[in-house]
Amino acid sequence: MVEPAIALFGATFEEASRALEDLLDETRALYALLVDRKGFVLAHREAVWAERPPELDSLATLIAGNAAATQALAELLGEERFSEIVHQGKNRGIYVEEVSDLALLAVIFEPTTPVGKIKLVGKRTADRLRGIIKKAMADASSARFTLDSEYTESASALIDDLFGES
Amino acid sequence: MVEPAIALFGATFEEASRALEDLLDETRALYALLVDRKGFVLAHREAVWAERPPELDSLATLIAGNAAATQALAELLGEERFSEIVHQGKNRGIYVEEVSDLALLAVIFEPTTPVGKIKLVGKRTADRLRGIIKKAMADASSARFTLDSEYTESASALIDDLFGES
Repeated sequence: MVEPAIALFGATFEEASRALEDLLDETRALYALLVDRKGFVLAHREAVWAERPPELDSLATLIAGNAAATQALAELLGEERFSEIVHQGKNRGIYVEEVSDLALLAVIFEPTTPVGKIKLVGKRTADRLRGIIKKAMADASSARFTLDSEYTESASALIDDLFGES
Repeated sequence: MVEPAIALFGATFEEASRALEDLLDETRALYALLVDRKGFVLAHREAVWAERPPELDSLATLIAGNAAATQALAELLGEERFSEIVHQGKNRGIYVEEVSDLALLAVIFEPTTPVGKIKLVGKRTADRLRGIIKKAMADASSARFTLDSEYTESASALIDDLFGES
């Protein structure tokens, strides 16, 4: 089964969501998503002025798929990867910026929104999200270590107890 | 076998190449390609100041493939299709604009080149190419008709002649 490369919980999820919300407030974009490169939604925000949002899971999958597809194009042009992608349509635009090796930031906006502003705030938000994820992953690996040793001890104690050994 | 949906010959090819050359002169971009949506290069131009060009056939295939891949994303957002796509990397950027149902214009540029200028001139060039292709296709269908009736007449005359009928 495909599982997300990262998952955001508690305070980290709140912080990431706040970063997306600030982006929407500042740019007047419609939707902002933090997406796993495998296609999972890690966090998302919709502007209060936005209509019915598109299906977010499908959107995340397509965003990640597209980012992977452009990888070959980047390599042919001697790029490690494209750090930003803009698709512009008649009624909707989408801007995708790389957050890390694992995550992408996607912003969906109306054609009246200046792309320059989306890019500027998008890059700043990507930096902010990068920091949040990095911190979360460092916390998670130290937390997991503590949990593991504690869990092992208490589990052995419980097993010993069940089988009457001491 | 996959065949190009359109092919440009003679004066039409020259006109299309000139449109690409004018685009390079005006924008100072590196490469300009007119690409079939199936992934064939219809016409291309390299700037005299550009380094070794990337492998154009592979590039055209990837450009067409990417354009097709973004189609699903466009549809999910309620767009018929995305008319323009920008990928921006550290050393190279690529701008793809729709010319028609059959063809795409791709411009490869350095990050120092203003994207706004690429877009502006790109859109104008796409319009120009649209006109050239439309005219070529109209000419081709009328030419084929003339050729066909002429060919039929001369072929029947030849057959009659061969078999001694008059």
